[in-house]
Amino acid sequence: MDPMDAQSIQRSFPLTYGQPLVHHFSSSNKTPLDIHAPKEQKPIRVGVVFCGRQSPGGHNVICGLHDAMKSHNPKSTLLGFCGGTEGLFKQKTLEITEDVVSKYRNQGGYDMLGRTMDQIRTTEQVNAGLTTCQTLKLDGLVIIGGVTSNTDAAQLAETFAEAKCSTKVVGVPVTFYGDLKNQFVEANVGFDTICKVNSQLISNICIDALSAEKYYYFIRLMGRRASHVALECALQSHPNMVILSEEVAASKLTLYDITKQICDAVQARAELGKYHGVILLPEGLIESIPEVYALLQEIHVLLKNGVSVDNVSKQLSPWASALYESMPPFIKKQLLLSPESDESAQLSQIETEKLLAQLVESEMETRTKNGTYKGKKFNSICHFFGYQARGSLPSKFDCDYAHALGHASYHLLAAGLNGYMATVTNLKNDVYKWRCGGAPFTAMMTVRRLLRGPGSSLIGKPSIHPVAVDLKGKPYELLLRDAEKFLMDDLYSNPGPIQYIGSGSDNKTICLSVEDQDYMGRVTELQAYLEKVRTMVKPGCSQEVLKAALSSMASVLEILTLMSPAAKSSITGHVKY
Amino acid sequence: MDPMDAQSIQRSFPLTYGQPLVHHFSSSNKTPLDIHAPKEQKPIRVGVVFCGRQSPGGHNVICGLHDAMKSHNPKSTLLGFCGGTEGLFKQKTLEITEDVVSKYRNQGGYDMLGRTMDQIRTTEQVNAGLTTCQTLKLDGLVIIGGVTSNTDAAQLAETFAEAKCSTKVVGVPVTFYGDLKNQFVEANVGFDTICKVNSQLISNICIDALSAEKYYYFIRLMGRRASHVALECALQSHPNMVILSEEVAASKLTLYDITKQICDAVQARAELGKYHGVILLPEGLIESIPEVYALLQEIHVLLKNGVSVDNVSKQLSPWASALYESMPPFIKKQLLLSPESDESAQLSQIETEKLLAQLVESEMETRTKNGTYKGKKFNSICHFFGYQARGSLPSKFDCDYAHALGHASYHLLAAGLNGYMATVTNLKNDVYKWRCGGAPFTAMMTVRRLLRGPGSSLIGKPSIHPVAVDLKGKPYELLLRDAEKFLMDDLYSNPGPIQYIGSGSDNKTICLSVEDQDYMGRVTELQAYLEKVRTMVKPGCSQEVLKAALSSMASVLEILTLMSPAAKSSITGHVKY
Repeated sequence: MDPMDAQSIQRSFPLTYGQPLVHHFSSSNKTPLDIHAPKEQKPIRVGVVFCGRQSPGGHNVICGLHDAMKSHNPKSTLLGFCGGTEGLFKQKTLEITEDVVSKYRNQGGYDMLGRTMDQIRTTEQVNAGLTTCQTLKLDGLVIIGGVTSNTDAAQLAETFAEAKCSTKVVGVPVTFYGDLKNQFVEANVGFDTICKVNSQLISNICIDALSAEKYYYFIRLMGRRASHVALECALQSHPNMVILSEEVAASKLTLYDITKQICDAVQARAELGKYHGVILLPEGLIESIPEVYALLQEIHVLLKNGVSVDNVSKQLSPWASALYESMPPFIKKQLLLSPESDESAQLSQIETEKLLAQLVESEMETRTKNGTYKGKKFNSICHFFGYQARGSLPSKFDCDYAHALGHASYHLLAAGLNGYMATVTNLKNDVYKWRCGGAPFTAMMTVRRLLRGPGSSLIGKPSIHPVAVDLKGKPYELLLRDAEKFLMDDLYSNPGPIQYIGSGSDNKTICLSVEDQDYMGRVTELQAYLEKVRTMVKPGCSQEVLKAALSSMASVLEILTLMSPAAKSSITGHVKY
Repeated sequence: MDPMDAQSIQRSFPLTYGQPLVHHFSSSNKTPLDIHAPKEQKPIRVGVVFCGRQSPGGHNVICGLHDAMKSHNPKSTLLGFCGGTEGLFKQKTLEITEDVVSKYRNQGGYDMLGRTMDQIRTTEQVNAGLTTCQTLKLDGLVIIGGVTSNTDAAQLAETFAEAKCSTKVVGVPVTFYGDLKNQFVEANVGFDTICKVNSQLISNICIDALSAEKYYYFIRLMGRRASHVALECALQSHPNMVILSEEVAASKLTLYDITKQICDAVQARAELGKYHGVILLPEGLIESIPEVYALLQEIHVLLKNGVSVDNVSKQLSPWASALYESMPPFIKKQLLLSPESDESAQLSQIETEKLLAQLVESEMETRTKNGTYKGKKFNSICHFFGYQARGSLPSKFDCDYAHALGHASYHLLAAGLNGYMATVTNLKNDVYKWRCGGAPFTAMMTVRRLLRGPGSSLIGKPSIHPVAVDLKGKPYELLLRDAEKFLMDDLYSNPGPIQYIGSGSDNKTICLSVEDQDYMGRVTELQAYLEKVRTMVKPGCSQEVLKAALSSMASVLEILTLMSPAAKSSITGHVKY
């Protein structure tokens, strides 16, 4: 953590800052720190709420929480808030019993409880949440959601601690965008399913393109502030091209640059006699194009100042106006939509795929007229895969992962921990090797200093931020390695529909498989080393061994001190629960 | 068969008309008519071609054909025509070996060979086909396609017979529309997969609607001249509403009637506090609305007469012009597109779902202003599921069915039969009870006398026609039974993704399960009865038995003669092969 961030976070979260990481050890785990979990614990009352867009697997978090609570004490009570955070504020609850759970186990959607408003942010909202938890005498509140909801959960935990409210707040990383990632959180519930369903459909379309040989398919995928879904789907289905928002932002590509890139690809393929192809793009792409982003910002400021939609275009700066006027009519209308609550544009409504298809078509016509392109006419079909996958049955991985997170949430609450996110790590390995635990929200926070980009109004306020695709990371490296072959050789791959038994049912996302993420596993490994050195070097050991140990440890410490300014105040430890 | 049709068909197909139905009996079948298929047969040369839109399972027909040919004689040669019928005309072939087959076994798409032009109709085309078959010395030509392609195949068979060409023509019913159905053909390859993939997506969207509770989803499905896909998907996923073209045509509903029906449903649901829903419609719906159809016909006639797109609207009749002008701009543009080769409108390009959503939205606004509707604002999201499923991996059923049809095709050719469609019946039962055979194309033909409706230019020419959803049939009855509950109670059902192992992997379409279709099975059953009577009543039996038999059979014959004018010339028999 950046030390400047640390100060700011500590100031904002004095009571929940600096708590240790926690691990759950089962009785079969033979480490010296093993603590046996008592079989029967005192009954607890817990509330649970869905926040944000429905992610496949959400129901299983509740099932896992329910199962863990009841197995430790059948008298424990689990209350679900109906209609999302609105239900939380209005104390609208449903007692979650075995009957309820059995209907929704392994099912998609959030329809067990529903969701409406997706935030707990204003003072009224936070106070309403506090009142509810006190009135219902809750020992714990579990918030199921993504980046924003878990930031809200962190704030709630701090407020509850300040108000000496006995309700502990725990968050669960459930978001199909897959952008709530850090050293403690390896994956998000829903991402695996969403990528698999979309990859199935993309592959179907690739096969369709290859069979009919007459269309370019432009497919817009979910992914607002990060392009994880587009990257994973590209790795699974091998379309000809994928344009990530992160690439565009990093290279500062203009709309014309992107159009030209696609046209060059179309032309190169035409020279091989290929007039079909599949191109993926995330919905956030439009905001990552610098000049379009600037235009959107101007529009949003004008709308905020009460300028009516019909007059906005007249009040744009000359430069923005020129860009705006160059756009096709359908996209003009979509750019004028009011921004969402997080100040980003209404990305699900802006048909970037159609914009690009039209720009490419007219550029190819120009090239045909100029005589620089001699191939057949360019034909395109556009798709937006925004809703087809969200309500899907969760994959086996998401079913298991969500259920394990539900269990982990219970154990955090039973241990009386407040302001934690439930974590399950070592996910790359088989389920029986997964490790449950928790990490404090504050350890995942950063402070944004950039003046531009969506969410810029949060400047200075510590938050859990969405993590963009790492252009130096292994998954992107994997994509780059084969990008040229994917583009020209039609190496389409069809992972097929999600399977629940047999071949393929244990597949995980490619991102998860190649990323090197087992942070907590490595922390444990390090501690095992320290423990071994401690046992080897104690009164009775030889002078030589002692000397060698001392000098090695001194240099280790020196290196670490140089590398990490924050190393002095370790935030790692163990808590029994 | 209507006797008037029979005459007309016989006139058009003098050489391939009146051939018997054929059944394939395996050596384990103990009926008296059992004929043992010889293990080694003389090597044959066969060509195979994909016609029409790619259907999941198409590859397996070729795999089945290849496997059957090679198992009876490894020296047999199978040639695939590259690029559909265009490859047939240009003699562009690929020898299909075990290597080729192993890459495409159980895979979706038509990319083993591709497809381009989809017809063999003009004299030039038919002659080119004839030349190819003679040059390549083919013993057989297998045409994989739907209604139109099999009609073309019938014509080709007749022409080949006339030209004394030794190539026999066999068709295979492969079309995801599922509209090539008759007493001999129970199902089409691809329909099972398409309905399963679409039902998976529709269910996902139903769950999404129920979780977010704020949108009506309008989903347009494939189905041009018949709504089988929409009906089957509705039976699998239980959306709130489905509007079939056949219902609209039968009740002569206007665009306003349909809009009103949907608005009434939206209003009734709003009274229960429900502001979400899912509505399915087939792409052919727009043509089934009488006044829109009349408008489209006027437009197509004007376009045919060389009127430019910009001038069409000015030359419409006052009535058609009024309707045209009342339409939203995007649909106006789409209605002006030139018709397809079968004279139907470009249905994949006409966004009927958006038209209905807009009409419903403005009607709900009117009702709000009038004070007759007091609920929340109506919000919609539109989808067209036209391309996501076509390239899918085929379901287990389609894999098996297609492979069996490939086998059946081989046996028809090996028996020297010309002008037949390969059939596999008793599909409702387990695979080992399926029955392979063939039926002459001419036995499936009818002659259209109606003056209106797509394909009206074919009047008087016998064809295999697409079969519409039977509004008196069992699948539709099943839908009607629950329609009210589906509409109001959100009984969404999620069949989930296609499975290849375990629970659900042997599911068949609901239409297939409830339809009563085993025609050839019942023919066999009847013949068994006749055989039993023959054995019971022979010299030596008592006078009483003989009298009873005589009088019963006389009355049976009398009833049958009254019922079927064509009964005198039976077209059923057995051929050994």
